[in-house]
Amino acid sequence: MIIVLEPGITDAEYNHVLEVIEGMGFQVHVSKGVRRTIVGVIGEEDRLRIQPLSAIRGVERVIPVLTPFKLASREFQEEDSVIECGGVKIGGKNVAVIAGPCAVENREMLLEVARRVKKAGASMLRGGAYKPRTSPYSFRGLGKEGLEYLREAGDELNMPVVTEVMDARQVEEVEKYADVLQVGARNMQNFNLLDEVGQRGKPVLLKRGMSASVKELVMSAEYILSNGNARVILCERGIKTFEDSTRNTLDLSAVPNVRQISHLPVIVDPSHATGRAGLVPAMSLAAVAAGASGVMVEVHPSPERALSDGEQSITPDVFDGMMQQLRTIVAAMERELQSGRPGNQEDGG
Amino acid sequence: MIIVLEPGITDAEYNHVLEVIEGMGFQVHVSKGVRRTIVGVIGEEDRLRIQPLSAIRGVERVIPVLTPFKLASREFQEEDSVIECGGVKIGGKNVAVIAGPCAVENREMLLEVARRVKKAGASMLRGGAYKPRTSPYSFRGLGKEGLEYLREAGDELNMPVVTEVMDARQVEEVEKYADVLQVGARNMQNFNLLDEVGQRGKPVLLKRGMSASVKELVMSAEYILSNGNARVILCERGIKTFEDSTRNTLDLSAVPNVRQISHLPVIVDPSHATGRAGLVPAMSLAAVAAGASGVMVEVHPSPERALSDGEQSITPDVFDGMMQQLRTIVAAMERELQSGRPGNQEDGG
Amino acid sequence: MIIVLEPGITDAEYNHVLEVIEGMGFQVHVSKGVRRTIVGVIGEEDRLRIQPLSAIRGVERVIPVLTPFKLASREFQEEDSVIECGGVKIGGKNVAVIAGPCAVENREMLLEVARRVKKAGASMLRGGAYKPRTSPYSFRGLGKEGLEYLREAGDELNMPVVTEVMDARQVEEVEKYADVLQVGARNMQNFNLLDEVGQRGKPVLLKRGMSASVKELVMSAEYILSNGNARVILCERGIKTFEDSTRNTLDLSAVPNVRQISHLPVIVDPSHATGRAGLVPAMSLAAVAAGASGVMVEVHPSPERALSDGEQSITPDVFDGMMQQLRTIVAAMERELQSGRPGNQEDGG
Amino acid sequence: MIIVLEPGITDAEYNHVLEVIEGMGFQVHVSKGVRRTIVGVIGEEDRLRIQPLSAIRGVERVIPVLTPFKLASREFQEEDSVIECGGVKIGGKNVAVIAGPCAVENREMLLEVARRVKKAGASMLRGGAYKPRTSPYSFRGLGKEGLEYLREAGDELNMPVVTEVMDARQVEEVEKYADVLQVGARNMQNFNLLDEVGQRGKPVLLKRGMSASVKELVMSAEYILSNGNARVILCERGIKTFEDSTRNTLDLSAVPNVRQISHLPVIVDPSHATGRAGLVPAMSLAAVAAGASGVMVEVHPSPERALSDGEQSITPDVFDGMMQQLRTIVAAMERELQSGRPGNQEDGG
Repeated sequence: MIIVLEPGITDAEYNHVLEVIEGMGFQVHVSKGVRRTIVGVIGEEDRLRIQPLSAIRGVERVIPVLTPFKLASREFQEEDSVIECGGVKIGGKNVAVIAGPCAVENREMLLEVARRVKKAGASMLRGGAYKPRTSPYSFRGLGKEGLEYLREAGDELNMPVVTEVMDARQVEEVEKYADVLQVGARNMQNFNLLDEVGQRGKPVLLKRGMSASVKELVMSAEYILSNGNARVILCERGIKTFEDSTRNTLDLSAVPNVRQISHLPVIVDPSHATGRAGLVPAMSLAAVAAGASGVMVEVHPSPERALSDGEQSITPDVFDGMMQQLRTIVAAMERELQSGRPGNQEDGG
Repeated sequence: MIIVLEPGITDAEYNHVLEVIEGMGFQVHVSKGVRRTIVGVIGEEDRLRIQPLSAIRGVERVIPVLTPFKLASREFQEEDSVIECGGVKIGGKNVAVIAGPCAVENREMLLEVARRVKKAGASMLRGGAYKPRTSPYSFRGLGKEGLEYLREAGDELNMPVVTEVMDARQVEEVEKYADVLQVGARNMQNFNLLDEVGQRGKPVLLKRGMSASVKELVMSAEYILSNGNARVILCERGIKTFEDSTRNTLDLSAVPNVRQISHLPVIVDPSHATGRAGLVPAMSLAAVAAGASGVMVEVHPSPERALSDGEQSITPDVFDGMMQQLRTIVAAMERELQSGRPGNQEDGG
Repeated sequence: MIIVLEPGITDAEYNHVLEVIEGMGFQVHVSKGVRRTIVGVIGEEDRLRIQPLSAIRGVERVIPVLTPFKLASREFQEEDSVIECGGVKIGGKNVAVIAGPCAVENREMLLEVARRVKKAGASMLRGGAYKPRTSPYSFRGLGKEGLEYLREAGDELNMPVVTEVMDARQVEEVEKYADVLQVGARNMQNFNLLDEVGQRGKPVLLKRGMSASVKELVMSAEYILSNGNARVILCERGIKTFEDSTRNTLDLSAVPNVRQISHLPVIVDPSHATGRAGLVPAMSLAAVAAGASGVMVEVHPSPERALSDGEQSITPDVFDGMMQQLRTIVAAMERELQSGRPGNQEDGG
Repeated sequence: MIIVLEPGITDAEYNHVLEVIEGMGFQVHVSKGVRRTIVGVIGEEDRLRIQPLSAIRGVERVIPVLTPFKLASREFQEEDSVIECGGVKIGGKNVAVIAGPCAVENREMLLEVARRVKKAGASMLRGGAYKPRTSPYSFRGLGKEGLEYLREAGDELNMPVVTEVMDARQVEEVEKYADVLQVGARNMQNFNLLDEVGQRGKPVLLKRGMSASVKELVMSAEYILSNGNARVILCERGIKTFEDSTRNTLDLSAVPNVRQISHLPVIVDPSHATGRAGLVPAMSLAAVAAGASGVMVEVHPSPERALSDGEQSITPDVFDGMMQQLRTIVAAMERELQSGRPGNQEDGG
């Protein structure tokens, strides 16, 4: 921690600053420059970080030296984490494709989409049973019924299932059906929910909040890790900016950026990031080229009838074409597409 | 709802668009221009809004005509809502000042601050018992003990108490102690929490999310109103922008902006918006001049020892000076400072 | 300047970092912490700042200690600058109101607006002769003819005139007619233009760029000051954010923020900031309450016929009402409204 | 153009709205809904767009139907523009790599970098002779001397040269030396400069402003096209957002986004977008995967000694490795790397 003192600091104020810091058991290292005096503080920065040192009179600025996260940091663990999710590996050399409808609308539709995306090469199935909606008058998901359909489709096709949990009260129920618990963008800083999923054993897919910096994303992962659950997958899904021709702005540089500071895998959701089906294939390819551990895309057999996010869902046919291109990019990057476990139907065939 | 069709739309696509819309029971009104054909759709826009019309082939753009909220809109209720909070009125001509520490740290400190701000003219007491913190290693509040101290201070000084509820599971407990339930910025789109506070009777102070537009803020209020609770106070507290010399960017134009579209009162929190104690008084005055129904500020007897947000807390002395200036601005605006009920101590005096 | 070294730095890299810095004639001050080594560099920071120290292998981060501007800083000059503009003072206790049409459209309209705003209490006249327009097909101003009308109106009413100069080639011409040269938001980092107006004697009204931080704004002022022209007035006029119900987001906290770091006066332009006439009066009052040295507003006798920015122009009648309220706020703040010099007509009257 | 009327509009106001529009020679098409009346206006939208219709009393909102640009639109020209720049093609199937130092610092360094990037597969040479710098105390380029070195290096290696022109006054000089004139991000809305380069014959590389939307970028291209110069290459180089761990946020979805609305080629500058050398290779690959017509990267033999932007410059060795990966991505995308013309030295070899 570095403390920059104000130019006009009095002796009394100066002594007080040093007393406060030394009183907490830290060593100080004072460096007097031409226009400013700087105090280097040596010791456990975490303990210091939570002190409001910048509120002390005579302190101009406090500059942390270390990142505020530990367990999630690349310094703590040098090699990539590879998270096993119901048989599918996320992280390292692997590239996983997670696909499915935005919301589970009914059993037939879900099975239809699941079969198509499985056939095209998706390794995991996504679908919302509980849906966060900005309007109270919108479709908010089938709830438990949706979870049952997801489990059935996952079992039939031997695909692990990822679905969102919106509230700490839902965790117990959702983890009975899902292989991976998704924490949505709006809940990235719902700290009670982070605690709750951190105390369970299932892998967590943690989406970046719309106004969260890369560091805040990793910091939210730290919540989960510090609760004992090390199986966290990060997901870049676009941030809020002034650009209004896309739903959000996909910050694809977050992929190599996160990879430098954390060992956790990071995937990309181009559907929510762009909000436009026509941009999803291009951004999926770009995500893999940027080094992402996978992509998560919304696929709907008839987007114009979708109960949620139809404008950003691609059709199974478009998904087929995208997967063909994706395979060539994966190969060019010398990485491996996680094709997923063989489906149970195929097992019996 | 207006639907703009693509220039190259085929006859089959065109007919399909019309069939879909008419099939839902809406009337259409087609207007062929030189370069585009436009379809005006007449009927209940809410029902239409949730359809993914832009996913229909041949549709270039879908433009809603109405705001997506109803109960919260100025159209629904023309006159200002005035929300009674334990004897203090928020809205209309009234200006309320809510003050107190960021977090309740202990009983003595809370009482000390409460007495000082009451004396200076604050009408309500704020303080966090459950604290959202970006780091799992920070102080996260005293919980139930903090609620008890808040109630005690509120009772002693005859000040209504506002405190944050972070999770749907906490609502039942918090409402036993608090006069107003605060939903924090990070929870503005925690829809389960909105449902929960909407089904209770206590007034709700709803803070704008860091990446929420003014319309999304009012939309979240609509969640609460549509659940039956009409006592909602909105709070502008800064949005995330590129400007990094303040914690957030206070969007003060949100005050007259919200007032044009909604009847709900809107107050301003300059402490979280700026993150800098030195900017809080100026922005409090500006908030009232802009037409806000009040301000909420963090006051701490010794900011350098605060367990949370010390750098943005002002001292009781600074608060005294600010209140003096605020009174002259309130008078200049021909509004009335809610001085709050007389304190119980004073009653007996 | 503080240099944070990477945790795994080798001895050779470490020695190289020190050699580079000492080779430039600086003293170093090394502080070895538990997890990081920090190098404090003592000497002229300006000379150091322009070195790409963060590109040296083994350097994790470089942290400047001082602000990058000098002449514009509060440290360089403690008391407020008061800029005289053709007889009107901007800065210190004074509050100046600059009003007029967005673009000068014709002689009659300009004179009509000028007379009205003068009568209501405006001290300076604004109007665009050269207009930056996002579309090449829009009205781009009357050019020299517009400058002549401005001068005529200014002379008749004894109001100093402020108008925009868009290009270094125009400076010579514009300064013949104008009392204050405006550098627009889109040109805040047109460094050649800054050099040019810095080498002339007329006061400069420098508007904040839509994506410029407060520090970058002051840094652009430094360009002008370092060229020898100390008469710079800063103007907050809104920044680009995700909020789309206003044209830009007025960052009103920039007012006290700038005042802490710079001695230059700062005024506010609520017309361009909000883009909505209905929000202009409230934000003008708020600007003065926040401590601004003035406001600049667009007034048009018939906004629906304006050739530029009609939607954000207020009518003379609205301006009259706003000025009444503004006077009470100015009085409440114990400041002084610069009523401007008496008009020449009145002189003769 | 669609005009939404306010719910409480009076008959007189309603009639006035229609008179104004019909008075300009447009046809109207009125559609009365349950809660709003909508007026469709038929005719040349460009002529209508510049009218401040939203300032008419009773008008709630004005919604343009068409994009504000014409010549640059995909509707105007369906097939991709391919711009020839001194023998190198940009657009269509081609992928061009433009590389070189941020600033031309001296003759030897420039030749060294040029030889290395040419050998690795770059097809064009970049380098700044006139440098926009946020601080007046920074190195601002060699000027004419830099242009001479660029031309010499371009001639020796048979590489077309792209360099920035900062001011309308510089255009005549710069076009004597450069094959492509670059308009920098800060000048994207320097309309006088756009006019000037639009009236010349050389291709223009137009960089997106830091706060410019995709539509505003294309609109600035329209300025150049409407002046008669159709050879415009767009460049995504990052936008300003709250994320502060990168210099800007690379909006890579702008690539497919622009390609949908415009026929002009779009390239990507990951150096300025990220500001971090370590992120440049990954984002270059991603750019090509997203469909960009090329990338422009800063290469410096010794970034730690660079006079400008050292922290974002990659070394020639890193560039070599990046080019190898880029070739496999280009092949996977079935596109063609513009290897450039053979160098003159090699001709003689």
